[in-house]
Amino acid sequence: MTAVGIDAIELWTGKLRLDLPNTFAPVKGEDPGKYTKGIGIEYSSLPDVYEDIVTMGANAAKRLMDRRGLVPDDIGRIDVATESAFDNSKPVSTYVAGCLEQVYDGDFHHANKGERKFACLSGTQVIDDAYNWIRAGRNRGRAALVIATDTALYERGDPGEATQGAGAVAMLVDEEPDVVALSTEQGYGSADETDFLKPNQQFPSVDGKRSIQVYLARMREALEDYESVAGDTHPDDFVYFPFHTPYPGMVRKAALLGYRHITRDTEIEDALADDIGMQPREADFPEREDYEEAIRAYMDELKETRRYREWYERAIEPTIQISGQVGNWYTGSVHIARLSALRAAAEADVDLAGEKLLVGSYGSGAQAEIHAETVQNGWREGVEAVDVEARLDDRYDLSYEEYELVHDVHNHEKEVEVDEFTQPSGEFVFTGWGRMNERRYDYVE
Amino acid sequence: MTAVGIDAIELWTGKLRLDLPNTFAPVKGEDPGKYTKGIGIEYSSLPDVYEDIVTMGANAAKRLMDRRGLVPDDIGRIDVATESAFDNSKPVSTYVAGCLEQVYDGDFHHANKGERKFACLSGTQVIDDAYNWIRAGRNRGRAALVIATDTALYERGDPGEATQGAGAVAMLVDEEPDVVALSTEQGYGSADETDFLKPNQQFPSVDGKRSIQVYLARMREALEDYESVAGDTHPDDFVYFPFHTPYPGMVRKAALLGYRHITRDTEIEDALADDIGMQPREADFPEREDYEEAIRAYMDELKETRRYREWYERAIEPTIQISGQVGNWYTGSVHIARLSALRAAAEADVDLAGEKLLVGSYGSGAQAEIHAETVQNGWREGVEAVDVEARLDDRYDLSYEEYELVHDVHNHEKEVEVDEFTQPSGEFVFTGWGRMNERRYDYVE
Repeated sequence: MTAVGIDAIELWTGKLRLDLPNTFAPVKGEDPGKYTKGIGIEYSSLPDVYEDIVTMGANAAKRLMDRRGLVPDDIGRIDVATESAFDNSKPVSTYVAGCLEQVYDGDFHHANKGERKFACLSGTQVIDDAYNWIRAGRNRGRAALVIATDTALYERGDPGEATQGAGAVAMLVDEEPDVVALSTEQGYGSADETDFLKPNQQFPSVDGKRSIQVYLARMREALEDYESVAGDTHPDDFVYFPFHTPYPGMVRKAALLGYRHITRDTEIEDALADDIGMQPREADFPEREDYEEAIRAYMDELKETRRYREWYERAIEPTIQISGQVGNWYTGSVHIARLSALRAAAEADVDLAGEKLLVGSYGSGAQAEIHAETVQNGWREGVEAVDVEARLDDRYDLSYEEYELVHDVHNHEKEVEVDEFTQPSGEFVFTGWGRMNERRYDYVE
Repeated sequence: MTAVGIDAIELWTGKLRLDLPNTFAPVKGEDPGKYTKGIGIEYSSLPDVYEDIVTMGANAAKRLMDRRGLVPDDIGRIDVATESAFDNSKPVSTYVAGCLEQVYDGDFHHANKGERKFACLSGTQVIDDAYNWIRAGRNRGRAALVIATDTALYERGDPGEATQGAGAVAMLVDEEPDVVALSTEQGYGSADETDFLKPNQQFPSVDGKRSIQVYLARMREALEDYESVAGDTHPDDFVYFPFHTPYPGMVRKAALLGYRHITRDTEIEDALADDIGMQPREADFPEREDYEEAIRAYMDELKETRRYREWYERAIEPTIQISGQVGNWYTGSVHIARLSALRAAAEADVDLAGEKLLVGSYGSGAQAEIHAETVQNGWREGVEAVDVEARLDDRYDLSYEEYELVHDVHNHEKEVEVDEFTQPSGEFVFTGWGRMNERRYDYVE
């Protein structure tokens, strides 16, 4: 069976940044360590006044197409994942295609466009749909362009304000991909949850504590479901574990739980037993509460073992590097995690071809999806071509007062006039509203 | 290759109805014929105060599952198409699953849930995704439950007010389906259009004239694209042509254009030539304007030919019967058209097994999708089990004053207390808001 997967990746970060420890923390009267160590985010990316989910998505897509020398006729599907849509009917993908048609010969009239919403999860769902579309033999030799684009803003003063972010990841899904091939096997953990939602509102209502529990519970369920079709997983089977990263601190929690789960009944559990004992088994505890207490105690010790720390440094830490520099990109977040890990490998000059990733996607509401990916021969060239450092370094540093203005600019309920902070060049920009209140875009040379 | 397609269909109409010629027209000072003959809608379905897109979708799904004796473990995917979502993050499918889990043993934690938005088109896109998921070998023997659910309301006084409607269509997509098998071939016509949109608003902004042009242009493009992969279409190849039906009058326009297109260069064009001449060819007209005028004149004559009228009565008229009784259900509309045609055949005691349908879906913004379906052996039992007449007849007839109250109840920007008009029984109902402003539901015996 021909491999199908991600052939190319590009990203576009919002062009502004808010320094959490040095700009945000002092105003909030917080210890900078709360952000750098606890949450794990140093900078939030934010969109300049002429940026939004369409410009970021179209700009990432244009970079990808230019780099790969693609023309509209090469693309048979444009699917956008977002939870920041500004229209309840017209999908973001039509706006993105309209932008791209301004700069390419030909058009995308033949391309199936769509939009999926499921909190932060749908960036993976559109990849899955593209994979299935190709496997179903409906792609007519064309590739799918999938874009995860979001502006993750919270009410000012909301605890989530420290995890904001904005950016887009564009990915080309095709046969014989250069970067990673996707597994047919998938695992799901999905329940009707009220952890994070936006009922007829732009900014989320969040039950923070519940949200963490739900993330962990759904991920465990998805992992078990994945193992039921793909067989048991083992920490050494996968070189990296890119997981949805609302903030790196969340992934640290999930990693420890995941490690405990996948080392159970393995030689690793046995090897650790001398130091920290075997994992508590529920059957040995008459009371659930006592079992949970024992699990917590085991994990506190597990976290400090050399074996766990080495695994964490090798398999998890590289996945959260970019996230700590940009904040939460919602639908794009797990795709940043994959890119972050692959880039770390390229920098360390490790050959990953043939190695496997275990990818854990998640959306509040809530659903987790686990699948495996096999790194392809062209991975290194594919990830080195994404000039992440320059894009992150080029961002404009906002003062707190400027941050407040930018937040208002992107608040759908406010109308404020704010001058742009950066100068657009070679990119799509938002230019204002048309007569039906549609958002309009131009390409700036 | 095993057939994949629609194995079962159910619908749920909003339980109220507005009589357009007799209740709406007099208040608007309009001729009742504007609605019955021009637009072609006699009644709009509207939701009672305890109904919404979740209850309608869950109720249609429960009927389908009960009729087929399904349990949650039989369903591997729940995908909802809507342009009436009330949450910008949490998908409607999670609410629907939450409802169903109240009444079935087991749960849907293993099921991939999603939500697609593309105006009225996404009801077909979720079927396509389900088809691809099965063809990709990812369904593990499970079927997909896809639901198209919408409440199509316009600002009061908007011309679209006469085309409102509310209801849900639930469909089971599976291997070896009972009702119709889908073609692998698809045709697309897709462009970035501003014909109908809802920028950060519940009710649509519509450019009515443009919307008609765009519908026709995109449908023609999709048909040409379909023909490029599936070969030329001919009026006699298909027993019915179910098309997206915002209102039957729109389909009457599209049918005439479509017939002209597919009879070009056929024996039908030749046979009609004695009466109305050959179709104008653009190459014969130095000016585009003159060509278009000639086309209009040809179509005026074509419409009156016996051959066209017979084709229309056979292949189109049966598809718009239910639509005229319920109004526009947005994402559900084309699926009502299919059901309407199949029911007409069952009533006329015609055997359709092996016959083909040409299905034309459309969403503003804009995109058309054309595919073919082959009617399966179990079609008759499958459509006769859907008790459409009783559901339509059971609706409560609203006075104009009551209609105004119902419109306000479903307006997200108003808070009004209105007593229910009907008594719920054996169905899911909306019961109010939870602490995070989430909508809550119960099953009423």
